[in-house]
Amino acid sequence: MTTNLHWHSGLISRADRTRMLGHGGATLWFTGLSGSGKSTIAVALESALARQGKLSYRLDGDNIRLGINRNLGFSAADRTENIRRVGEVSKLFADAGVIVLSSFISPYSADRALVRQLHEEADLPFLEIFVDCTLSEAERRDPKGLYKKARAGEIKNFTGIDDPYEAPHQPDIHLRSHLQTLDDEIDTILTTLQERGILAQEALPA
Amino acid sequence: MTTNLHWHSGLISRADRTRMLGHGGATLWFTGLSGSGKSTIAVALESALARQGKLSYRLDGDNIRLGINRNLGFSAADRTENIRRVGEVSKLFADAGVIVLSSFISPYSADRALVRQLHEEADLPFLEIFVDCTLSEAERRDPKGLYKKARAGEIKNFTGIDDPYEAPHQPDIHLRSHLQTLDDEIDTILTTLQERGILAQEALPA
Repeated sequence: MTTNLHWHSGLISRADRTRMLGHGGATLWFTGLSGSGKSTIAVALESALARQGKLSYRLDGDNIRLGINRNLGFSAADRTENIRRVGEVSKLFADAGVIVLSSFISPYSADRALVRQLHEEADLPFLEIFVDCTLSEAERRDPKGLYKKARAGEIKNFTGIDDPYEAPHQPDIHLRSHLQTLDDEIDTILTTLQERGILAQEALPA
Repeated sequence: MTTNLHWHSGLISRADRTRMLGHGGATLWFTGLSGSGKSTIAVALESALARQGKLSYRLDGDNIRLGINRNLGFSAADRTENIRRVGEVSKLFADAGVIVLSSFISPYSADRALVRQLHEEADLPFLEIFVDCTLSEAERRDPKGLYKKARAGEIKNFTGIDDPYEAPHQPDIHLRSHLQTLDDEIDTILTTLQERGILAQEALPA
């Protein structure tokens, strides 16, 4: 009985996780057109954080669309459910103490607002990062050849072509990937993370 | 351009995460009857791991059924989808380097086999932990009063009463919660994690 009490007294709190990891959990939500540079920035940020010993993890189409959301398509309802599920997964990672980098076009304001609300209700930091890029520049880059297919009518409901992108009105961070260098973008994000207290905590001895 | 290459060269590998955290990611899947002690063991294990500076995170009905799976019920199809999604989320956590403790009745062998397969395909450790307990003992404990309701017909399709529990034939760990102490169960799990090399890695300087 004493033993049971002993174990049970040890519920791990968010403060415990912060002490263990040296930073708080948070969701950084990258939204923007296909080709705007969301994934490029997330990859670079993950690397920059790791060099500081900070644990981050990237969620994107590669590990979500082929995994938990493999039974969803691209209708409006499925897009909304796609973003809802990613928002819930992001929230779990943030609760675990991880800095999660979620990169999804997420074109609808209402879907992004729902994800923010999920985090606010759980008292977890949520930063909307608008990776702003002109359509012409994104289409010029066209890293996956998707704009070309959309223009040819081979892909329907493609954001920016025949489906809207609702730009954030008040993003927490506004990057302009056609005007800034990647270094500059990473610096901007790291500075904000420090200002918000997410990176400020020093690792303390247990 | 040089800068871009610089950032991109830094893709974070699983080995990087293991160095950073001092342990590998893994999914520990607790299966057993309602009241068998799955959550009690997971809570105690989380605490024991934290005392060693190891990062774990618990997934259970509380943060899953009210979150990512809030749009699922308890039909056979929805139970299967419930476990599939939890399996995918567990896999993401394990990939991130976290020791995830997933506690779900998960009564059907086929559903658990799918989760194992998801992990094996991704080359991530998956340990099925059978929290074995007699139905009479689980029903005597009845911590949430659910057996009483099931016996009264107020809950339908309740595992062990009017829905089957398919016990694992070859679990990675077989606990007998009506015969073992909690300390003994935690020791058994920690020993297996060391034997499998999940806890063996020492944190190395970056």
